[in-house]
Amino acid sequence: MTTNTPDLLTALSCPIPISDYPTVLMAHGGGGSLSQMLIERMFLQAFDNPTLELMHDGAVINLPPAMSEENQGEGTRLAFSTDSFVVNPLFFPGGDIGSLAVHGTVNDLAMCGARPLGLSAGLILEEGLPMDDLWRVVQSMQGAAQKAGVSIVTGDTKVVDRGKGDGVFINTTGIGLIPAGVHVSPLRAQPGDLVLINGDIADHGIAIMSMREGLEFETAIESDSASLNDLVEGVLAAGGEHVHVLRDPTRGGVASALNEIAQKAGVGVQLVEKQIPIQEQVRGACEILGFDPLYVANEGKCIAIVAPEAADEVLAAMRAHPLGENAAIIGEVVAEHPRRVFMRSRIGGLRVVDMLSGEQLPRIC
Amino acid sequence: MTTNTPDLLTALSCPIPISDYPTVLMAHGGGGSLSQMLIERMFLQAFDNPTLELMHDGAVINLPPAMSEENQGEGTRLAFSTDSFVVNPLFFPGGDIGSLAVHGTVNDLAMCGARPLGLSAGLILEEGLPMDDLWRVVQSMQGAAQKAGVSIVTGDTKVVDRGKGDGVFINTTGIGLIPAGVHVSPLRAQPGDLVLINGDIADHGIAIMSMREGLEFETAIESDSASLNDLVEGVLAAGGEHVHVLRDPTRGGVASALNEIAQKAGVGVQLVEKQIPIQEQVRGACEILGFDPLYVANEGKCIAIVAPEAADEVLAAMRAHPLGENAAIIGEVVAEHPRRVFMRSRIGGLRVVDMLSGEQLPRIC
Repeated sequence: MTTNTPDLLTALSCPIPISDYPTVLMAHGGGGSLSQMLIERMFLQAFDNPTLELMHDGAVINLPPAMSEENQGEGTRLAFSTDSFVVNPLFFPGGDIGSLAVHGTVNDLAMCGARPLGLSAGLILEEGLPMDDLWRVVQSMQGAAQKAGVSIVTGDTKVVDRGKGDGVFINTTGIGLIPAGVHVSPLRAQPGDLVLINGDIADHGIAIMSMREGLEFETAIESDSASLNDLVEGVLAAGGEHVHVLRDPTRGGVASALNEIAQKAGVGVQLVEKQIPIQEQVRGACEILGFDPLYVANEGKCIAIVAPEAADEVLAAMRAHPLGENAAIIGEVVAEHPRRVFMRSRIGGLRVVDMLSGEQLPRIC
Repeated sequence: MTTNTPDLLTALSCPIPISDYPTVLMAHGGGGSLSQMLIERMFLQAFDNPTLELMHDGAVINLPPAMSEENQGEGTRLAFSTDSFVVNPLFFPGGDIGSLAVHGTVNDLAMCGARPLGLSAGLILEEGLPMDDLWRVVQSMQGAAQKAGVSIVTGDTKVVDRGKGDGVFINTTGIGLIPAGVHVSPLRAQPGDLVLINGDIADHGIAIMSMREGLEFETAIESDSASLNDLVEGVLAAGGEHVHVLRDPTRGGVASALNEIAQKAGVGVQLVEKQIPIQEQVRGACEILGFDPLYVANEGKCIAIVAPEAADEVLAAMRAHPLGENAAIIGEVVAEHPRRVFMRSRIGGLRVVDMLSGEQLPRIC
């Protein structure tokens, strides 16, 4: 499984430079470059194994081959993905931590091309949480699970002392089956592919931040939090093998998701700003709050990287779905500037879209 | 999946009486009767589905039957189990939160009779956690995973603000394959079965509490935290279909585990106190601290409920394993007093061993 024995590991000193980072910072969980450093230098090094290395939205596990005959020669492939939710506040316009926790993990499975088989729910409650708030969260989880056609099949509850938690944290972990013939992976992005998204960006992060900052708008900005498995079924039906990569641009937004893919696949990505859908109100809020919407979290958006010959069909499939009315082609994969993302701005210039360095939006999910 | 629509659910009032329990208490996570109430009245009601209903250590998911031919006519069965760890302190004699998190979920899979396929790790870090502590925890997780022969294949990290967490909380979720022919379930306990355990009880809880209370002993009491999958392989090889139930007596101890099984299976359980293995030092610490060792958490113990004709073989298999040297037959399943656990004391009396009502040991796992 790995060449590191426990003894060797114990002898290793901390792979994060303690002089620079003596303690964990909020930015280590922000989805940007400090998160990436923690994952790559610490977790990937320690947990070294080929499945983990892919850094997909979830792991793909091949079941023993005995039962694969009817499966087009492929073994049964399970997707397996985990996510913890610590969003603050617990209830926000368009959702709450319960529905978000279900959507998040259903979506991570969907981004592996998998159909969900079941979810687990691990709750960490803070002593003193109003019982009725817990009930609202639990109902919301179940509502979201039913809507996505998945069951919460196992769970666990812990309680921590007052002041040692924050209301409720939820871990959801999901397993799903990847249908034969579906092969999506960040490694499959290749020059010429087009980059699609199923609608307006930055709604989730701005809904949360507006609420935290007490900003008021004519109509409330709502989170886009939703399960994308049904939309992804349509995308895969329309694009088949031509669908190369699926990724939900959550923490760190579209910019971080595309940077990760560009780095993994060794390709460049070029976005076209004017093609990126965004609500006027959200753009305005981003300006007021000082955020670049490309880095703001989405919780109901899917980036699909698709061979050019299938892009129109995939776009049509997205638009035919209630969660994809504003779907658009927002850029392309290029051979130039490998591992980097650029964007053609509205006024025609080309600018670098870097990995987020610090921590822009704490506890957004 | 369920007959409750989201709208109907929303209309339901909180199933926990708010007048009695307006907020979440520490005891709601203690593994006793308040935990059970929360699970049964709130979670089982909301997440209603046949898999969840079993309240096993994990869910058993049947894969679609297409690929089952070589599998003795049984479909492929996955075990799926989740657990969050909030133990305080993070480091304790015999282990730490990292190894504990791996052992706990490996064991939950093993208690379903499953061989682990992979683990996920979801970390919730508190801002300000020393980076070196995180590294120790991560190394310990990997060491435990290697020892159990399982990989951590997917993960997630969140950071919460200082004072909103407590160093590190870890969720581990595991999936495993249940071999054909293995059928363990709390429902299979039946009168005449014998109750076995692989060694001394109460070590884990007392190791934690001694440290918290600053108790000193001639030799430190160490947690029994360990992965039991290898021991369970031996148990199943020795007992086969005669192994009816496997259960790890963690939170709430041996008493709570056996009460749950008795309730589920509608049988009685009768323990014999003098046969229950316990270290003298641990018994002494229990007296000082005012705990009944039957209710104290174990993290490397397995209760096996076995048909009488296989009990000797299973006991021998346990004793042949490094984690089972002190294995013993500690009681039997009886038809009398269904749903209740009794114990024949050292002086010959028969006493009720109830479900733990309050919360005895907070944040023990």
